[in-house]
Amino acid sequence: MNVVDLITKKRDGGEHSADELEFLMEGIVQGTVPEYQIAAWAMAVYFRGMTAAESTALTLAMAGSGETLDLRELAGSGKLIVDKHSSGGVGDKTTLTVGPIVAACGLPVGKMSGRGLSFSGGTIDKLEGIPGWSADLSTAQFRRQLREVGLVVAAQTATLAPADQKLYALRDVTGTVPSLPLIAGSIMSKKLAAGADAIVLDVKCGRGAFMESLAEARGLAELMVSIGKGAGRRVTALVTAMDQPLGRAVGNNLEVREAIDTLQGGGPPDFQQLTQEVASEMLLLGDPALHGEQEAAGDEAGREAAKRSVQEAIDSGAAFDRFVQFVAAQGGDAAAVVSPERLARAPVTVEVEATRDGVVSGVDARAVGLAVVALGGGRQRKGDEIDHRVGIVLTSKVGDSVTTGDRLCTVHAADEDAAGLAAERVLKAYSFSEGMQERPERSIVLDRITS
Amino acid sequence: MNVVDLITKKRDGGEHSADELEFLMEGIVQGTVPEYQIAAWAMAVYFRGMTAAESTALTLAMAGSGETLDLRELAGSGKLIVDKHSSGGVGDKTTLTVGPIVAACGLPVGKMSGRGLSFSGGTIDKLEGIPGWSADLSTAQFRRQLREVGLVVAAQTATLAPADQKLYALRDVTGTVPSLPLIAGSIMSKKLAAGADAIVLDVKCGRGAFMESLAEARGLAELMVSIGKGAGRRVTALVTAMDQPLGRAVGNNLEVREAIDTLQGGGPPDFQQLTQEVASEMLLLGDPALHGEQEAAGDEAGREAAKRSVQEAIDSGAAFDRFVQFVAAQGGDAAAVVSPERLARAPVTVEVEATRDGVVSGVDARAVGLAVVALGGGRQRKGDEIDHRVGIVLTSKVGDSVTTGDRLCTVHAADEDAAGLAAERVLKAYSFSEGMQERPERSIVLDRITS
Repeated sequence: MNVVDLITKKRDGGEHSADELEFLMEGIVQGTVPEYQIAAWAMAVYFRGMTAAESTALTLAMAGSGETLDLRELAGSGKLIVDKHSSGGVGDKTTLTVGPIVAACGLPVGKMSGRGLSFSGGTIDKLEGIPGWSADLSTAQFRRQLREVGLVVAAQTATLAPADQKLYALRDVTGTVPSLPLIAGSIMSKKLAAGADAIVLDVKCGRGAFMESLAEARGLAELMVSIGKGAGRRVTALVTAMDQPLGRAVGNNLEVREAIDTLQGGGPPDFQQLTQEVASEMLLLGDPALHGEQEAAGDEAGREAAKRSVQEAIDSGAAFDRFVQFVAAQGGDAAAVVSPERLARAPVTVEVEATRDGVVSGVDARAVGLAVVALGGGRQRKGDEIDHRVGIVLTSKVGDSVTTGDRLCTVHAADEDAAGLAAERVLKAYSFSEGMQERPERSIVLDRITS
Repeated sequence: MNVVDLITKKRDGGEHSADELEFLMEGIVQGTVPEYQIAAWAMAVYFRGMTAAESTALTLAMAGSGETLDLRELAGSGKLIVDKHSSGGVGDKTTLTVGPIVAACGLPVGKMSGRGLSFSGGTIDKLEGIPGWSADLSTAQFRRQLREVGLVVAAQTATLAPADQKLYALRDVTGTVPSLPLIAGSIMSKKLAAGADAIVLDVKCGRGAFMESLAEARGLAELMVSIGKGAGRRVTALVTAMDQPLGRAVGNNLEVREAIDTLQGGGPPDFQQLTQEVASEMLLLGDPALHGEQEAAGDEAGREAAKRSVQEAIDSGAAFDRFVQFVAAQGGDAAAVVSPERLARAPVTVEVEATRDGVVSGVDARAVGLAVVALGGGRQRKGDEIDHRVGIVLTSKVGDSVTTGDRLCTVHAADEDAAGLAAERVLKAYSFSEGMQERPERSIVLDRITS
């Protein structure tokens, strides 16, 4: 196969065969196709897109480019290994709640997670604020913990989907990140290589997400569901709101505390709801007994049963217990999650007050995320060190009415200067509408797409 | 400046500033911008194009990326240094005739030329069939010969427009060759760096050219004229027909013989006409005395005067004498051009005969060019050795009526096998129309665009 012919084919709007995509992905991993050819090809894909069949073939080629995990023996009789993925947002600590809940309901959750970049946080960063906790596990450790604790969160190893890792690194420096088939392929290939039989996708949508419009988010969700189907996996995608931050806490340790609250039955209503929805979808996909496909009213009855299981796991304390076991199993200090006031806290807190009366009409999630990055709680560049203590806790969110002097949020910072700058930034992230009534809570789930 | 921002800007349809393009071209030459970023950028340019202002700025940035020649002192009082460029075709030996003619008319011609690739031949390949002749000249030799002989043809050195050389090499392997602003920039930057004040462009159009449609060829011609104007140069572009090969001879030594014939007043009518047109345009641009801009009927009168000068240079033998001097000055065997039967000839010739009666309606120039490549007379890949002896001489061209058994053409080959294969190929390159009358000769010049 001639690489220039493949680039030219895509440039002219042609459709690649599975063989052609395997050849390209193999070439990336082996280094036999030079980076400049892959870069030109990726830009052609940006402009020309890919059909559903091509997207599936690309995903399978990337998933098959390295080691693949087979976790089926660990799923339990008649059940499937379910993974979840969020497309990234601000204040998104959902893995920290749904993981323990689903595990407590009897479905093992073995997850490869990532680190945060720019305004978007990462699950591993959040967990690393717990003293001693580590995401660096061998495959053997990963399997053992999945069997013994039912819950494990590890950093993606270089041996899983290496074609995706190399292609992503190249896209990052060639202006070819925002291509739907390449985004979908990147997400789904990692899930497939990591052994998921069923996948719940949380596609974020809005100012604090990579997909800002509902149409874009829905397009990505549909494409990933179609890829999953093409790859013989069960996939459900939720499109969820990310205009304002999820929950109230943004910043690593602050988010872990909020996740613990939520696992113990508290937490902010929007985050409670998303936890409930994602955990239920995971149970529905992974546990055919709940799904009740055969019965007429099965889906609805199954959904109700799943929601009851989730609530019970929280109410009984089983979910939180599972979280503590999971933290300890990966070397973390269990005492710091049982008594989360022991997690490191920022030395300086500053309250940001409303400078006018009105109803909060928006809290720009991206601006809040970037303010936390500026505080040191996130990364401008890959490899940056982060300060787990800092962040922002929102008191007022969209729909709340405030009067001048009311607290809008609290900034947690390493020093006064950083706190002052963040306070200015976050105040600008708030918008208000004059005559507006307090709004009824809007559902965080905007759409649901399933295979 | 951030390269990813520049790629993204072009990807999203933005217009680069001159500074941005200089930064990119400088980065190519210095190696500070990685090839994968340039490749992605080139593909974005393929899809988004460039404005006229961007194309001019790109050309100037490439022209200024290395050494630039200043030949003005050699032009002679009140005259300009005129260069010519052909966009490449089959049987195009025009430089071999117009160079000596224009030099004999008193305008020095100093040309950087290229080698052939694929179906398209190259001037240097043709001249290298003359024993001893060499295109490798130092800048000092180039200037001296231009002063003393008034005609020099050299291979492009690595120090002239190095950004173009590197960008072209990268485009060649990334599917980004066919982009009008990149093609135009590549051609024009070399001409500007080589010291041309005025340029005559011969943009080929048809099956044997890189631009197959008149619209494409005209688009390229207009863009190059606009770039030349933006760079303060006088430019005239002729769009000329390249559906069938130019003249009768295709293949290096065969073409040199045809050029010598033409310099001596013979030669095929279409090649005579193109020689006349290109040489006249060069004289018009380079010699203001001929151009007569100030007079009402100046252009037409100047054109007639230029054509008379061209004819006189041929009729008097001055043009051919100049060719002999030029060959000798670059180490070539003058006796081999004075008696061209001494140029090496292929050992095998095979005549291809018409297998039906009819009027020739087409001789596919690309197919003939590729048949000559297959004979060993051209290159499939850069760096391939070529056989100067081989080629094809067309007896019948478009408009000629033939009866079964008439000779269509003669194949000159290294051996019987190659001759047989070429004969089959070239027969297929011919098409015939039944009832058609012999056609009057069509002008080879399809359009003329000037600044």
